[in-house]
Parts: sequence; structure tokens; C-alpha cells
Amino acid sequence: MASHDNSKKALALHKKLRGKIRVVPAAPVRNRADLSLVYTPGVAAVSSLVAKNPHLAREYTMKGRMVAVISDGSAVLGLGNIGALGALPVMEGKCALFKTFADVDAVPIVLDTQNTDEIVDTIIRIAPAFGGINLEDFSAPRCFEIERRVVEALNIPVMHDDQHGTAIVVLAGLINAFKVVKKKIETAKIVISGAGAAGTATANLLHRAGARHILMLDRHGIIDATRPEAHKKMLAQFTNPQHLKGGLHEALEGADVLLGVSGPGLATAADIRLMNKDAIVFAMANPTPEISPEEAKRGGARIIATGRSDYPNQINNSLAFPGIFRGALDHKVTKITDDMKVKAAHAIAKLVAKPTAARIIPDMFDKRVAKTVAKVIR
Amino acid sequence: MASHDNSKKALALHKKLRGKIRVVPAAPVRNRADLSLVYTPGVAAVSSLVAKNPHLAREYTMKGRMVAVISDGSAVLGLGNIGALGALPVMEGKCALFKTFADVDAVPIVLDTQNTDEIVDTIIRIAPAFGGINLEDFSAPRCFEIERRVVEALNIPVMHDDQHGTAIVVLAGLINAFKVVKKKIETAKIVISGAGAAGTATANLLHRAGARHILMLDRHGIIDATRPEAHKKMLAQFTNPQHLKGGLHEALEGADVLLGVSGPGLATAADIRLMNKDAIVFAMANPTPEISPEEAKRGGARIIATGRSDYPNQINNSLAFPGIFRGALDHKVTKITDDMKVKAAHAIAKLVAKPTAARIIPDMFDKRVAKTVAKVIR
Repeated sequence: MASHDNSKKALALHKKLRGKIRVVPAAPVRNRADLSLVYTPGVAAVSSLVAKNPHLAREYTMKGRMVAVISDGSAVLGLGNIGALGALPVMEGKCALFKTFADVDAVPIVLDTQNTDEIVDTIIRIAPAFGGINLEDFSAPRCFEIERRVVEALNIPVMHDDQHGTAIVVLAGLINAFKVVKKKIETAKIVISGAGAAGTATANLLHRAGARHILMLDRHGIIDATRPEAHKKMLAQFTNPQHLKGGLHEALEGADVLLGVSGPGLATAADIRLMNKDAIVFAMANPTPEISPEEAKRGGARIIATGRSDYPNQINNSLAFPGIFRGALDHKVTKITDDMKVKAAHAIAKLVAKPTAARIIPDMFDKRVAKTVAKVIR
Repeated sequence: MASHDNSKKALALHKKLRGKIRVVPAAPVRNRADLSLVYTPGVAAVSSLVAKNPHLAREYTMKGRMVAVISDGSAVLGLGNIGALGALPVMEGKCALFKTFADVDAVPIVLDTQNTDEIVDTIIRIAPAFGGINLEDFSAPRCFEIERRVVEALNIPVMHDDQHGTAIVVLAGLINAFKVVKKKIETAKIVISGAGAAGTATANLLHRAGARHILMLDRHGIIDATRPEAHKKMLAQFTNPQHLKGGLHEALEGADVLLGVSGPGLATAADIRLMNKDAIVFAMANPTPEISPEEAKRGGARIIATGRSDYPNQINNSLAFPGIFRGALDHKVTKITDDMKVKAAHAIAKLVAKPTAARIIPDMFDKRVAKTVAKVIR
């Protein structure tokens, strides 16, 4: 949880910096000779070339290196719908991470609309300068339609990170967790609490990676095909073909994995005791996990991961998104496929040579991560 | 004119750079402690603060320093309507100049639409992150409506540089030219060839600065109130109340100033001879002026300016736009008024301590220029 001291320091730093990114020229403009190449008259030759050969934009302009980090501020951190300006500090931070972890240039765009059609139209219209689009902090279920429509319309990679970044890192952690407890994704029973952006994408990706026994929970209990929401009906098709009903207790009975992407106060030690031996618990709500690692341990969990840096096994999107876009830019990828996401998860997992209960996932600051992920995005 | 050699060099440089700007973190992210301030959990305090107090965005986010350079690629350099991607190298160059001349951070946004309503909507929707908007290379007469509507909708400074940047620097040059030839703007007869973005804004600003004898020409001759275009009717009201008709000859007869913002091949030495003694000729088409300086001199022009760096008196927007936005950001200006533009022109003019025929305007690389302009934008 953000301490009072941490918040005070963060506020002071932000006030001092006034924005966490800077835009600098790639080449100095010291005199008329420099200017004649970077700007007029020399730039006319570049503009003509690119106008006639649009595919060359990736070679001659920033399109080859620049990602837009776009949000409407409808689901920011744990703060909820705080709007465009509230989202801006987060998007700036994300752009700083893009550069730090993967040398990807990124700029924040925060939208003064939360209308799906307007969002989609706007993103499509500003896309030409960018080599990729990272959607961020759009609320569910709008995020699914927005991403789908923008992906369809554009020939550059578009990824809603709250969905797929999370799903990739969860899968990476699970791959190693299963190694430690000697279970298999195909036969393990996996319970996911939360059917928002992260939960939905995680269920999809785990299914794609071979999981065949997933149960999803939302605040109303186990999700089945009677739910009114389209994305929950879709989830129920492959997670609950047997039309199970019930709540957390029914779901956890005999489960091997509990993935929390919902919020604090989900489970107690007694709930975890319903699970199988060598239970795996990822409690990823930030800043307060669905169950504290201490409580999960009391319930008998063998492997515990959180979103926090002060416990072992931090599940953090920063392990995925920088390398994903680095690879997409390097290899001129136009769509980020599920296959690439599974490969990225395996690539991240492999960086832990000998997984243990206390180490199933690499460190966020491990410099190999982005490069390793980038290699498989092609 | 861009030589073959210059074009080759510019292409090679652009291919090497792959984009002329880079986005870098304002503070390093070296470890978890840095991350906890720049990103989660610390950033949550900043997001909450800004969401509740939108006016603080200028203090705590990039909105206090960042300008969007936006184009639809409909009127790029002398290349015409080459579209979004063709415009991108120019916009990147402009962003590099913003940083170089005035430490303004700027990012290019090129639009995949040339529909006025869509352009206006899109700009308004992406505006929250920005402290200012530089419109660039929108064709006339659409540019007038687009600028007017975006200015009305937003509470950040919006300026179409092809209009007002040009007008400010022309006025600055004229102020000093009139000093040299001992004429006055109020009584001088000024002919403007070209009623596009630059010509229209220049006429407006000169009128605002006291000019009372302006005549505008387009390809059909002297503009009068019978012209179908709304902006030309408006121009005719204050430039041609006497309903003069005719072409360049009729206009130049007894004129003191000829301002060319149209294109090559406008006038000959014989035309210039129709003008009054101590004629002032600004031939600003790039790369080929409306009349060559040599030809203008043969016609008896006393003061000659062009848009080119290889002749004396280079009229270049770079003298205005960096300082305009620097000042607007520094002083939290929400609209750039005509009064500010006139003040900016006087500020630029004053930097030439003793104007001569060969030096009516400061050097683009004179470091005082942006600072001096910024001071009066308040």
C-alpha cells in the first residue's frame, strides 16, 4: 500500500519534474546546415518519398519507434473512473518505463471522451504517426469492444495492457509454479476471481496455453452462461460447460490454483484449505491483495505471488509490455496474436533457470527480460 | 531550392535516425524505489490530486510543458496535399525546433482524416494532455474554420502557425524595414500577393498593427467583395473598401511594400519599377521566391527579404512559434490574442539594434529571440 511518506515523496517529485517525460531531438540542430537536413528544404525529399511509399514511414519517420499510450481514464489503478487528467500521471509513468526497459519511445494520449464510438474513431484518426498502440486503463466490458475494433481497423499492433500484459505475466508465473509443484496446466483446476479486463484475458490465454479446467468468479459467484454480459457468456462456454453454480467455496473445492484479479477481502486461510495440496495462490490486487501472503500460507498455499514488490514473486506487467512492443516494432508485426503471447510467457518463464516456490518469475529490473520477450514477438 | 545533394543527405540522415525525436524519462527509473514514485504506488496520489483539481495538471503533469504539433497533411511545404504520413517528417522537424529554440516539449500528431468536423472533434478529444496546440500545414480555407472552432472549444492556446507565425515575422521585418526607409505602417501602401493561410493572417495582423492601405491579390487579381469565398469577402472589407479592380500592375502602382506569399513567377523588375521609391519586397515562397532578389534589386527595391537562408533577411516562422508557445506555457495563457502577436513582432524587431537594408530581422539561431518573444506572451 502506498504509505503516506511514499505519496508525499511522489507528489514532491511530480511537482518538481512537471511531467515525467521529455521530447528531445534525435540529432542536434546547431546551425543552418543542420536545419536544412532536419527541416526545410531537405525534409521535402523525405516527405515526398514517404507520401509515395507509405511502407517506408517505418524506416524514415518516428513510426518505426513510437508507441502511443492511450487512456480514457475510466479504470485507473485502484482509483476507478477518474477521467483523462487523472490518468495522465500513470500514462506518463508507463511511457518512462517503455523507454527504460525496452528503448521504446512512447507518448501519452488521454481522451476527453468515454464514448466507445468516439474513442475508436479518435484512435484510428491519430494512428498514422505511431508504430503501435498501448491501450491502458479502459474499463471492462467497454475495453473488449474498443480493442477489437481498433485492432481490426489498423495495421499496427494494438494491445490493451490491462488485459494481455497481465495475462502473459500470470501465465509465465504459472508455468514455473507448475514446474515447482509438478502439476500440469492441462489437468490443473484453476479458479480465477474477477472477470474484468485482466481476468477475462487471463482465462482466454490460459485456455489457449492448454488449461482445460478453469472456473471464473465474479461478485455474483461462479460465472455460467446465464449471465447477461456478452463477455461472461463467452467465458462460460469454455470455463463452465458443466453449468456449475455456487460461490468461492464451491469453486475452490479441489482447486490447484487461485488467481485473484478482483480486490481485497476475497479469501481466508479456511478457504485456501479447501484447495488441493501444493496450492498456488496469485493474489494480484494492488495495493491490497485478495488474501495476504501470510494468510494464504496459513491456509496451506505452497506458492504465493502478488502484485507487490515487498513480497516474493511480483506479478507485474512491466515484465511483458516493453518487450512485446519492442519486438513488434523490430519485426514489423501488425497484429499481436495469442500465439505470440503464449510464446512471450514461456520466454519470461525460462529466464528463471531453477524455479522455486520463492522465485517463479524474473525480477522486473532484469535487463534480459525485454530482449528475450522481443525475440519471440514475430 | 533543395539541391540534389541536400536531398540525398537528408534522406540518409532520416533513414539513420528513424524519427527525429526521442521520448526520454525526466527522472531515471533505476530500481523499485524510483518506480514506486514515478509509477505505482506513488503515482496514485498524483492522479487523485489532479483528478480532483484539474488546474493542477499544469503543475504536476506534462500538460505544463507539452505542445501537440498537429497536421492533416493537406498543405505540406510546397508539396501540397500529401497526407498524414507525408507530413510526419515535417512535424517531427518542427518538434525538434521547438525543443532546440525554446525548450518546449512537442510531439507530432498526424491525422488520418481531412474532414473538418472530424479534425475538430479529434483535436478536442486528445487535448487534455497538452498545454498548447500548434496546427500546421492545414490547407486554406479549411484552416480558418478548424482553428476558430478548436480555439473556441479549448482553454489552452491553439495557433495555426502557417497563418500567425508567418504574420508575426512579416510584421517584425516590416517594422524594421519602415525604420530604414523612414516610412510609416499607417500610411504605407502594402500589396499582399496570396490569400491563403499566410496572406490572410498577415493582412489581418498588419491591419491590427495600424496598416490602412492594404491590397490583396490572388490568382484572379485584386480581391474585392464579389469573391465567393467567405474569408476573401472579409479581407475585401478592410483592404479594398474602394472596390478597386485589376491585377498586379494596378496594385503595385505607387505601392511601398510587396509581400509575396503565393509562389514563383509573380513579378519582374519592370513590375517593381511601378512601386514608390525605397520599395520593400518580401518574396517568401520557398524554395523559389516570387521574384529573385537580384531581379527585385534591378527593379529598384531597396529592402529585400526572402524565406531563404542564402540571402539576407530570412523571414522564418522559427523566429516566432517557439517563443510564442514558451511564453504561453510559462504564463498559463489560454488564448493567443492579436495583441500578443503584435507585441511579439515588436519584440522580435527590437532585437535588431540598428536596422539596415541588409538586416531587418534577427538571426534564427540568435538565442535571445525565443526568450524575448516569450516575455510578451502574457
